[in-house]
Amino acid sequence: MKAIEICDVTLRDGAQGEGISFSGEDKLGIVTVLSRLGIGLIEAGAPGMNARDAALFERLSALPSFGSVSAFGQTRRAELKAGEDPALQALLDSGAKTVTIFGKSHLLHAERILRVTGEENLAMIRESVAFLKKAGRRVLFDAEHFFDGYKADPAYALASLRAASEGGADVLVLCDTNGGSFPREIGETVKTVVESFPCLTVGIHCHNDMGLAVAGSLAAVEAGAGHVQGSFTGFGERCGNTSLCQLIPSLQLKLGYSCILPGEMPRIALAARYIADVSNTSLPPNTPYVGESAFAHKAGTHVDAMQKLPGAYEHIDPEAVGNERRSVTSELAGRAAVYEKISRVFPEIERRSPEVDLVLAEIKRMEKNGWQYESAEASLELLIRRSLGKLPRFYRLEFFDVTDNYPYSDGTTGCLATVKIFVGNKAALESAEGDGPVHALDVALRKCLTSFYPAITGVRLVDYKVRVITPNEATAARVRVLMNSTDGVRTWTTVGTSRDIIRASWKALVDSMEYFLLGRGIPEAEA
Amino acid sequence: MKAIEICDVTLRDGAQGEGISFSGEDKLGIVTVLSRLGIGLIEAGAPGMNARDAALFERLSALPSFGSVSAFGQTRRAELKAGEDPALQALLDSGAKTVTIFGKSHLLHAERILRVTGEENLAMIRESVAFLKKAGRRVLFDAEHFFDGYKADPAYALASLRAASEGGADVLVLCDTNGGSFPREIGETVKTVVESFPCLTVGIHCHNDMGLAVAGSLAAVEAGAGHVQGSFTGFGERCGNTSLCQLIPSLQLKLGYSCILPGEMPRIALAARYIADVSNTSLPPNTPYVGESAFAHKAGTHVDAMQKLPGAYEHIDPEAVGNERRSVTSELAGRAAVYEKISRVFPEIERRSPEVDLVLAEIKRMEKNGWQYESAEASLELLIRRSLGKLPRFYRLEFFDVTDNYPYSDGTTGCLATVKIFVGNKAALESAEGDGPVHALDVALRKCLTSFYPAITGVRLVDYKVRVITPNEATAARVRVLMNSTDGVRTWTTVGTSRDIIRASWKALVDSMEYFLLGRGIPEAEA
Repeated sequence: MKAIEICDVTLRDGAQGEGISFSGEDKLGIVTVLSRLGIGLIEAGAPGMNARDAALFERLSALPSFGSVSAFGQTRRAELKAGEDPALQALLDSGAKTVTIFGKSHLLHAERILRVTGEENLAMIRESVAFLKKAGRRVLFDAEHFFDGYKADPAYALASLRAASEGGADVLVLCDTNGGSFPREIGETVKTVVESFPCLTVGIHCHNDMGLAVAGSLAAVEAGAGHVQGSFTGFGERCGNTSLCQLIPSLQLKLGYSCILPGEMPRIALAARYIADVSNTSLPPNTPYVGESAFAHKAGTHVDAMQKLPGAYEHIDPEAVGNERRSVTSELAGRAAVYEKISRVFPEIERRSPEVDLVLAEIKRMEKNGWQYESAEASLELLIRRSLGKLPRFYRLEFFDVTDNYPYSDGTTGCLATVKIFVGNKAALESAEGDGPVHALDVALRKCLTSFYPAITGVRLVDYKVRVITPNEATAARVRVLMNSTDGVRTWTTVGTSRDIIRASWKALVDSMEYFLLGRGIPEAEA
Repeated sequence: MKAIEICDVTLRDGAQGEGISFSGEDKLGIVTVLSRLGIGLIEAGAPGMNARDAALFERLSALPSFGSVSAFGQTRRAELKAGEDPALQALLDSGAKTVTIFGKSHLLHAERILRVTGEENLAMIRESVAFLKKAGRRVLFDAEHFFDGYKADPAYALASLRAASEGGADVLVLCDTNGGSFPREIGETVKTVVESFPCLTVGIHCHNDMGLAVAGSLAAVEAGAGHVQGSFTGFGERCGNTSLCQLIPSLQLKLGYSCILPGEMPRIALAARYIADVSNTSLPPNTPYVGESAFAHKAGTHVDAMQKLPGAYEHIDPEAVGNERRSVTSELAGRAAVYEKISRVFPEIERRSPEVDLVLAEIKRMEKNGWQYESAEASLELLIRRSLGKLPRFYRLEFFDVTDNYPYSDGTTGCLATVKIFVGNKAALESAEGDGPVHALDVALRKCLTSFYPAITGVRLVDYKVRVITPNEATAARVRVLMNSTDGVRTWTTVGTSRDIIRASWKALVDSMEYFLLGRGIPEAEA
């Protein structure tokens, strides 16, 4: 089993993705999660390029995983000696054992962007690498625009690698900086480089501008590359970098390369979701291996077939990557999928039972009004129970009211919600302030329920998504709210739909509380 | 230049994607857009499987592009003769000139899922194809699970193709149904099939479960496939299908295959965005070729280099696919990107001018408070003008108020907003009802402004997105609202951030109106 060194560049190249911005805390969290998976190298930032990253390395150096952290920079400035360049010095000062510097492999770029001659550029590469090696660092040379440079002038591109090799570089990383090289080209070129530098490790760094970054990285590994760079969930400048969470399972589970700790593979989906969350992005549900829909079956024939032949429509067992199989409810899926959902709640109900039709009809009715249960399993279970008359009534809403611009005596304003409920014949009436109307309603409803169901204090909302369903009507459009709640152990998702975002949120909120109460096995209140 | 027949399955396989559901109008619109691009074949639905699709084909048959529409179904049921199977008859009744039927190429699936012998399955394929051919249709045979079947039992997989060929099939489409085959395997297997069936067109149908669907399709074309199936923006069951909007530009612009009308290539980005919108999905901004970020440059060094060497960080000219180059504003990008933005508004301001620092400082201050201008060009221009004291004051807000649960006399409730503004020393105070608080505010603010700026009645909001910025705080989190507005000619995006969704929306709304007034060249009001 050949080992491939994985180098995660989420915190450096990934941070170049539009909309991505990490706090120091975010970065520490990501380094910890990646090193726990057994990622070999984590490029955490560019301490010579900005002061924030320099401060970050001070904090990182306290982590036990600091040994696998690398610092990123570039070759010395043309007008300075390597030993005089403050950016190179900052790389040493960062304390990172491994240092990556990028340099130009494309003659045109050296001339036009750095404004140096080809010879000067080679000297910059050689001397910068040598300076860092002399200080005892492991050095990776990122050969920027390598594949384009190789196409334009193969001799010069190889000369840039030779300069790095003469400086003592440990790894030559070939970058398809613009993402325009096909996997076949990448494979052929990597093969040439591997043969030309038999004593060094050759690495690959792809961009996804043609949707081929994962394929290009695979081609490079098959051609002899021993080091792969990418960002964990694939984001980065323009169309992003090689998505490691997509590449690693293929390499390790299917092609027999060793990339991360084998025992950690079932945590790769969780790691990807964590990193997407921390990056304030959402992982597209259809992300290979790790997305929420990656093993979701919607076609009726597929759902049916999976019941006859498990795995009939799966390329691997979802558990191997910590994901799970789901059947998705929709008009398209029809009876088989709905039956599958029902039987999870009521195993005694049979496939041909009229109860299945009852639930199906109710789902269709709600879908017509803009509801969608695909991502809201908790609301779906409540719907099933409700349609079959098997949902205990925990409380009855008397009214709710919310004022957004509640005036305080000091002249500022706030948000005030009032909720009244009945449990049996006992009423609860509570008001609450909040940072917004939904927050105020959440607090007020919870205050009402706490006196009857004290455990409700342990519930909190962890995510809240709003989707406009008919965007052409803009603010008058119907909105769908998805809420993720947790009691610290389980997490569940509920949905609410309305023309009014507050009402939609309220419905999702009510479902969330009901689902929690249901799970606690609390006996039916006499509401 | 070799022609490749592109077959778009957005409306059939694409509709199996989680969260996707098309109305009849949606489907007509998508067929029209695809056929305008010159997509050779459009698989519009499965008229034998559901009644809605049968009705759809009636409507489609009135379109001039009906000739390129195909109908999808499956081999005859085991217990019926082909001529007795109502589903096959429905394919003929659809009027489609081209018909695709899928059948089993994997012996295990025939036995376990269809519950027939291998021989019976081959007869089902042969007779179903023959029945449709006899009725004068062009017939595509989708060989389901072909690659997995070929690995398990190559002789049987090839026998299934032979059965289709004996029935008279025109195209043998090899499906990697579970998405678990590597591009290299696909290339080798397609080569074998092309050599075995020299008189037939071989097609490829990939799924993206390893992030390799585009690469697999390319490998198939390079091995001799002449027909490629995919969904236009890549959605579909689980991780989706081959993304045609990513594949087509690579095939046609870089590898010299002919796929769509060459003159339509500059409209491919627009087509992808249209289909994503109609599907009620959002096209991930980092989608290769067509995403909004596909040519967005954020790294300061990249933005700087692009000014010295256009195309330095681009694999093609974005205009070739109807996309555009952007530089993205962020802390990371620094001065160069901010200067680029400023110079669009005020060309006279120089790169080293202190005004650039002034704007940069203001952007940083706002970003710390959760604002992000990357996607909100209109709000950014307002910020630049405001920081430099060059934003005319169109009006001054006196107050706004919104009540969500406004009680009507009939017992129902609604939403009421009140807004008061000054233009110079003239006041306007207006109330409005709405379907939700934001809608009510929108209407009320517009009513106030109309008396001073009548052109404002032509403005309408076309999209409205809400993003929770710090999801861990759930409902108390800060939200960011992005609004897209149009005056029928231009479209612009504004942003608002607050802990309260209504306040955030209000800010985006105010920016939207200001940006419109600015563009109309209306002289500064004496507010």
